[in-house]
Amino acid sequence: MPYHSTPLDLAFHALSDPTRRAVVSRLATGEVPVSVLAEPFDMALPSFAQHLKVLEDCGLIASEKRGRSRWCWLVQARFDEAADWMDAERRRWTERLDRLELYLDNTQEDGEGNGKPV
Amino acid sequence: MPYHSTPLDLAFHALSDPTRRAVVSRLATGEVPVSVLAEPFDMALPSFAQHLKVLEDCGLIASEKRGRSRWCWLVQARFDEAADWMDAERRRWTERLDRLELYLDNTQEDGEGNGKPV
Repeated sequence: MPYHSTPLDLAFHALSDPTRRAVVSRLATGEVPVSVLAEPFDMALPSFAQHLKVLEDCGLIASEKRGRSRWCWLVQARFDEAADWMDAERRRWTERLDRLELYLDNTQEDGEGNGKPV
Repeated sequence: MPYHSTPLDLAFHALSDPTRRAVVSRLATGEVPVSVLAEPFDMALPSFAQHLKVLEDCGLIASEKRGRSRWCWLVQARFDEAADWMDAERRRWTERLDRLELYLDNTQEDGEGNGKPV
């Protein structure tokens, strides 16, 4: 499996499906039993379980059996790893645009003769 | 193609590969010709072009021919869409933990008899 080999690869792959993103959204508000988690989805339970497996294999969610129910919850560390990557790239992008804006402002000022004397 | 059908699905799928994330990182610092973009990767150009196609198909990057070179740049709106989704989920998660902490603080205070009179 050349692709999806690092935890970050697997996390983004897991998030590339609307059902799995909806599961993450639901679990962001608290842990729930699988039966409750599955309710809003028009999907056979084995298919839904497959989605949970993808999320659990990449470490975005975890689960444990409590009595007759299996409960799921979000694993913050793995989610943060993906969110932090996005934030870092966005920050670099924004800093670049800020620098570009500053450069254009300075160039314009120089052109208008309002800049500092050269 | 039942999965990867919405723009957000495709964007997360595109980000599930380390080469494609590295391309996004590089383009966050400014637009570059494909030949320069490809340099750091130990990969045949057709394979690299395939990665660029995935990124361009999902709208994360755009490109145009200028003279003899094809230049690539990051498309902020599509990147923001994915980053905003992550941020929104993280915010909901953090708010939930804040509420939980507040609840536990109040419960503890009540238990110690330091809370407001009931």
